[in-house]
Amino acid sequence: MKITVIGCGRWGSLIAWYLDNIKHEVTLYGRESSGNMQRFIRERKNELLQLPDAIKLTTNLNCVRDTEIIVISINSQGLQGLMDELKEYNLKNKIIVLCMKGIEISTGRRLSQVANDSLDYSNEVAVWLGPGHVQEFYKGIPNCMVIDSNNESVKKLLVDSFSSNLIRFYYGQDLIGNEIGGASKNVIGIASGILDGLKLSTLKGALMSRGTREVARLIKAVGGNELSAYGLCHLGDYEATVFSKYSHNRQFGEAFVKHEKYYELAEGYYTVKALMKLGKYYGVELPICTAVYDILYNGVDAKEALDSLFTRSIKNEF
Amino acid sequence: MKITVIGCGRWGSLIAWYLDNIKHEVTLYGRESSGNMQRFIRERKNELLQLPDAIKLTTNLNCVRDTEIIVISINSQGLQGLMDELKEYNLKNKIIVLCMKGIEISTGRRLSQVANDSLDYSNEVAVWLGPGHVQEFYKGIPNCMVIDSNNESVKKLLVDSFSSNLIRFYYGQDLIGNEIGGASKNVIGIASGILDGLKLSTLKGALMSRGTREVARLIKAVGGNELSAYGLCHLGDYEATVFSKYSHNRQFGEAFVKHEKYYELAEGYYTVKALMKLGKYYGVELPICTAVYDILYNGVDAKEALDSLFTRSIKNEF
Repeated sequence: MKITVIGCGRWGSLIAWYLDNIKHEVTLYGRESSGNMQRFIRERKNELLQLPDAIKLTTNLNCVRDTEIIVISINSQGLQGLMDELKEYNLKNKIIVLCMKGIEISTGRRLSQVANDSLDYSNEVAVWLGPGHVQEFYKGIPNCMVIDSNNESVKKLLVDSFSSNLIRFYYGQDLIGNEIGGASKNVIGIASGILDGLKLSTLKGALMSRGTREVARLIKAVGGNELSAYGLCHLGDYEATVFSKYSHNRQFGEAFVKHEKYYELAEGYYTVKALMKLGKYYGVELPICTAVYDILYNGVDAKEALDSLFTRSIKNEF
Repeated sequence: MKITVIGCGRWGSLIAWYLDNIKHEVTLYGRESSGNMQRFIRERKNELLQLPDAIKLTTNLNCVRDTEIIVISINSQGLQGLMDELKEYNLKNKIIVLCMKGIEISTGRRLSQVANDSLDYSNEVAVWLGPGHVQEFYKGIPNCMVIDSNNESVKKLLVDSFSSNLIRFYYGQDLIGNEIGGASKNVIGIASGILDGLKLSTLKGALMSRGTREVARLIKAVGGNELSAYGLCHLGDYEATVFSKYSHNRQFGEAFVKHEKYYELAEGYYTVKALMKLGKYYGVELPICTAVYDILYNGVDAKEALDSLFTRSIKNEF
């Protein structure tokens, strides 16, 4: 199939590499001003991978006209801006696949809502979520991921066309849960980095158990299936986040608490703001998100916040 | 309180050290023939910790007569044997706390059932489960654990008397779920070691998501709360098992698949046998346990078994 990938960061470029690998016709789009894109045009590689010649590179968004599927992998808070840019192309009958994790801060919308709200009804939106490291996929180490959409036949088409021995896809059955679960795992990732920075890594067990619990409660309140918090989108992504040296969100949390500079995108930094809003709106207590928010935005001492989090008054588990 | 700890392995001795630390009057019992016990008597230490002089050491089981609480931490399949030995002391009005994880292979009983079946009705049984490394507790790094019992006042008494800044206890509310969850995490630990040995550690995300799921289904079928699989007893213990260099079960799985000898007790090796029985009896599919069982007992190739496990036919997540 003809596929355009929008976004040439770590994930966007891996997706382009992967989809080319399984014999799709791939165009990778990046902004003219993007350093990543300039390097791809010059050298066809970044610090992690090399793009084969079959992948077309472009800085002209016009490429979306002539494509069946558009995969988007950019920063979450920039999605509305991209959707605004796409309006002039008057997209019809396309499949938009969001391969990104976040919640829009200003509106609390899930990303599929952001996309749908800007698109003609004839287009369909899906999400592609779950665990995996760019570094390991590129080495050929397999993983399981999940594709979800409100449209069953789109979901089936995507799972059929995107599956391989490298990535096995499960059919998602809960768009709300999968999107909130995917977004919020980045916040748990920051919390785990904070634990690492404080030399309290051993509390990651409690973090996993309590973290999944509060995310499950939020998903349920928003109208999804609470079990999705325990699926590939969230718990299934903990290995790649809570325990991975590669995770930007974990690295960011660790750097923050050690007062070190950190330059990569840590989506959880933005997502936690959006989750605080959702929690308030739906009346759900989110103690771990609140602690992370207070540490990042309100100057609360990290050790104190986590101490009171995991060692606060003795109580029932569920 | 007067407490006897039965079992002088890694956990038994840590518990004795901990309970002494929080000012209980502690006796540690080990068999005359135990190498661990002989070393404690000689040097008051093992490879991980040093026992203060206040802890009484004995090889005479008679010590249980004069004690309010008996904490038991021995190998699971040996519990019935110990209960048989305890019969001659005709215990009355004691609290028995099981700090061990397993299911009896020959009968499929949970350990609290094994204990209760041999005790006078005036005694009460509780379990003490959850994450934590001996090495880290001994260094003063805190964690959360869970105490559960069918008797609410016993649960409260234990949580009140055993809590400290080092171990915060949650009240368990599902004895069935906590015991099955605690026992089965050792099997997931072996599976994670197998993944490490095969250089497929990246699949631990999927292992966590799918592993909790099948344990949740089993707990529900046996009559517990499926959410317990996501509590401290199981998921909360994954950091200390699935990701820990210290975990005997993880180490065993890794050694097994590398054809290396391994000499420590890996409870999961026995538990998986008992879980296969429970799964069959209650009609619950346990694909991960089955794969581990087939690898350990039926000579099935580990890579093949795991490949078909995580990459088998595409399907719904829940």
